[in-house]
Amino acid sequence: MPDRNPNPAAPARAAAAPRGEPMSELDRTGRQPKGHLVLRTLAMPRDTNPSGDIFGGWILAQMDVAGGLMASEISKGRTVTVSVEKMSFDKPVRVGDTICVHAELLRVGSSSMDIKLEVWARQLVDAYEAERQLVTEGVFRYVAVDENRRPRRVPDNPLFFTRD
Amino acid sequence: MPDRNPNPAAPARAAAAPRGEPMSELDRTGRQPKGHLVLRTLAMPRDTNPSGDIFGGWILAQMDVAGGLMASEISKGRTVTVSVEKMSFDKPVRVGDTICVHAELLRVGSSSMDIKLEVWARQLVDAYEAERQLVTEGVFRYVAVDENRRPRRVPDNPLFFTRD
Amino acid sequence: MPDRNPNPAAPARAAAAPRGEPMSELDRTGRQPKGHLVLRTLAMPRDTNPSGDIFGGWILAQMDVAGGLMASEISKGRTVTVSVEKMSFDKPVRVGDTICVHAELLRVGSSSMDIKLEVWARQLVDAYEAERQLVTEGVFRYVAVDENRRPRRVPDNPLFFTRD
Amino acid sequence: MPDRNPNPAAPARAAAAPRGEPMSELDRTGRQPKGHLVLRTLAMPRDTNPSGDIFGGWILAQMDVAGGLMASEISKGRTVTVSVEKMSFDKPVRVGDTICVHAELLRVGSSSMDIKLEVWARQLVDAYEAERQLVTEGVFRYVAVDENRRPRRVPDNPLFFTRD
Amino acid sequence: MPDRNPNPAAPARAAAAPRGEPMSELDRTGRQPKGHLVLRTLAMPRDTNPSGDIFGGWILAQMDVAGGLMASEISKGRTVTVSVEKMSFDKPVRVGDTICVHAELLRVGSSSMDIKLEVWARQLVDAYEAERQLVTEGVFRYVAVDENRRPRRVPDNPLFFTRD
Amino acid sequence: MPDRNPNPAAPARAAAAPRGEPMSELDRTGRQPKGHLVLRTLAMPRDTNPSGDIFGGWILAQMDVAGGLMASEISKGRTVTVSVEKMSFDKPVRVGDTICVHAELLRVGSSSMDIKLEVWARQLVDAYEAERQLVTEGVFRYVAVDENRRPRRVPDNPLFFTRD
Repeated sequence: MPDRNPNPAAPARAAAAPRGEPMSELDRTGRQPKGHLVLRTLAMPRDTNPSGDIFGGWILAQMDVAGGLMASEISKGRTVTVSVEKMSFDKPVRVGDTICVHAELLRVGSSSMDIKLEVWARQLVDAYEAERQLVTEGVFRYVAVDENRRPRRVPDNPLFFTRD
Repeated sequence: MPDRNPNPAAPARAAAAPRGEPMSELDRTGRQPKGHLVLRTLAMPRDTNPSGDIFGGWILAQMDVAGGLMASEISKGRTVTVSVEKMSFDKPVRVGDTICVHAELLRVGSSSMDIKLEVWARQLVDAYEAERQLVTEGVFRYVAVDENRRPRRVPDNPLFFTRD
Repeated sequence: MPDRNPNPAAPARAAAAPRGEPMSELDRTGRQPKGHLVLRTLAMPRDTNPSGDIFGGWILAQMDVAGGLMASEISKGRTVTVSVEKMSFDKPVRVGDTICVHAELLRVGSSSMDIKLEVWARQLVDAYEAERQLVTEGVFRYVAVDENRRPRRVPDNPLFFTRD
Repeated sequence: MPDRNPNPAAPARAAAAPRGEPMSELDRTGRQPKGHLVLRTLAMPRDTNPSGDIFGGWILAQMDVAGGLMASEISKGRTVTVSVEKMSFDKPVRVGDTICVHAELLRVGSSSMDIKLEVWARQLVDAYEAERQLVTEGVFRYVAVDENRRPRRVPDNPLFFTRD
Repeated sequence: MPDRNPNPAAPARAAAAPRGEPMSELDRTGRQPKGHLVLRTLAMPRDTNPSGDIFGGWILAQMDVAGGLMASEISKGRTVTVSVEKMSFDKPVRVGDTICVHAELLRVGSSSMDIKLEVWARQLVDAYEAERQLVTEGVFRYVAVDENRRPRRVPDNPLFFTRD
Repeated sequence: MPDRNPNPAAPARAAAAPRGEPMSELDRTGRQPKGHLVLRTLAMPRDTNPSGDIFGGWILAQMDVAGGLMASEISKGRTVTVSVEKMSFDKPVRVGDTICVHAELLRVGSSSMDIKLEVWARQLVDAYEAERQLVTEGVFRYVAVDENRRPRRVPDNPLFFTRD
């Protein structure tokens, strides 16, 4: 299935892509995602439930992976999930949607971290849709643990937070 | 495994997280990733080969997912991968590494798109490592196709490129 | 690896297994699981995170599968997850644990169902543990939908509930 | 997709769910499943073969997981599968079916256990079907092994069997 | 991790590889696999059970995929698995083993096919082992079906069988 | 779904299947696959992208598994992928296609191996197609490594190559 245009007289020029800027930043309308972009992936056919929908549990699992990833980066080591705040699923996710999970550190205790997670989806295949939509948001709490799964102190990490 | 600090007199304050900025932008040394961040994920135990390494084929698959995702966004529809340029794997990827795939549009033909993909990894668990490392980079060519898998013209999309 | 006991003079007799009774009912101490047993599975190596733990997101996904399964059985058709109440993870789940998800219908609206889900784990391999433990519990809300994902009325289903 | 019934004057009352009783026990017609319920899961789109059917091999794998789980519980440790008796697949399994695997201990040797496994399916989505159906049944033999995979004696376990 | 031998004066010459001959044919001792080689794959970490072994159910699933693949090729269309003969697992399969499934057509009825399946394993990583070993063998019966899953006649196919 | 032909007077005779010959060798037209058959598998629904195609990244992953498998067999131990030559995808792969990866050793350095990989597909389900087709081909370079991932010498292995 090669490109059959043998003589592209005037090759297209790519628009300048600012270094490291996420593609989803190109949207300019409505509410903006908040926090670091920690996970960006594609909803695949293997993630569907018997009705052909991306099931809620898959989205919850992506949120936990994203939050755990940020918690490990903040606390420079192993963490476990200890609680999840109430959340609602406002928009369905479909196969082919791009899923972004944004994470924001809300609070740091001695060993715990509260991380706000937002899931945004954008439909890609067939019926293109310029707007991304907030799928759900919630707060996950993580605790930093040592190799025996005992709580350990979250070390200072000025990139993410300061203790007074 | 709750946080046992009942009275955190001075709760830590989260550092300001600029809207939508990827966490990996916090690194400030060496070569920087180029292009849009289109995929960010975690290398999991189920992605290992029998030696316990994340195998090269998994990385190639992530690159193709990322490139296809960008190609679909640029061409507003379905695409297929038609070729892959020579590439080398310079650094191993380990379980627990965060994997970022950055994509840059190099060229647009009438129906094809050449997309440069960079894979960056950062080690997270146990031995924390501040530096991210370039794992591999390569150019994937995609062709926009219609529902019968026949090439179709990439429509103008000023967010990504301009035709002269 | 055949059984090398060539002459088992007195073959063991299996204890009577009451029809359809779940194996986990054999435990007789402490708090008991509440509600129907809707999911029973084994935590496998492929469900671990980079630290080797079964990650919280996998447990959340199992809860959602179990709750959705019960909601579909009650409402005799397709459902979607619309919200999740606050919950906490009190015990870790390890590879090899048997996971039971019990579901209890708390409330039925015209199209919604609130389902309480309890996750119980029992450790099996190597260090056998007679006691099962409550891992987490939470309430998931489902809405019955038609083929266009629009809410539909939950039909009367006296096996599960009665409307006054 | 919230429940749009703002004022449910007479909220439905859930029918009493006997403690720990499996949902499938609500069926009251025809042959009943025999043995402990050791596995209960949902046939998902990712378990289909190219024809869109749940393939026989997936069912065999579920039976082996269920039998191995029961064998480990009986023998309080590691086991391996050593043989499978002839079996036939009498009913197809479809995506969305609930799958129950019931297990009954038939015989205990010094290190081996013969476990009868029954697979029952119930169709859930769209065309609801009150009757569950026997998909297949078979006898799997397991041998208890130590950490070097050498046969070990199945310890006495009065919950499951008695030796004369 | 490039090859640091900058000047390989005498590059090694590859031994002639007969066209299409499977690598495993290079073994010359003991019992030989019988039938067509229909599946060849690698046992991966994600296929292990909680004890770290490749579990029997995975092997059964590979056999069914292989047999179904051959049955579809013989009958030029869709098939379903209807029965499995008794079989035993004589050798364990370890992560990193190469798994070959060989298939031989034993009998063709009007719509059914009996296919003998042999599973051979070869250990690859670390402790190299020249000998492959028979893991298990069994006969699977398949029935050719039409798009409504009703039995259809297996068409003549002289590449595989002749009817008298 | 049993075979309902109760009295198959003249049971079909299976055509002689030469020992260990791969089924795909039965094709006799056009270009032939070159090299050892190292991987043979079935493209499954779970390997599709959102458009329902088997995605290029899955094919790349299969090539890497196949090449790594051959490299480990040649070098009698652990290997890592270090580079991939340019390649193009000439034919699409569909769900239900049988995928064969053939591997040929092109060159052996002190620690590296260049392996040519060919991917051939044959469509099986519904519209049967006698001809197999070359999907893609490429050269992958592997380096033999020790347990610390440091290059080690590829030992002499006359089954695969001779050093002068």
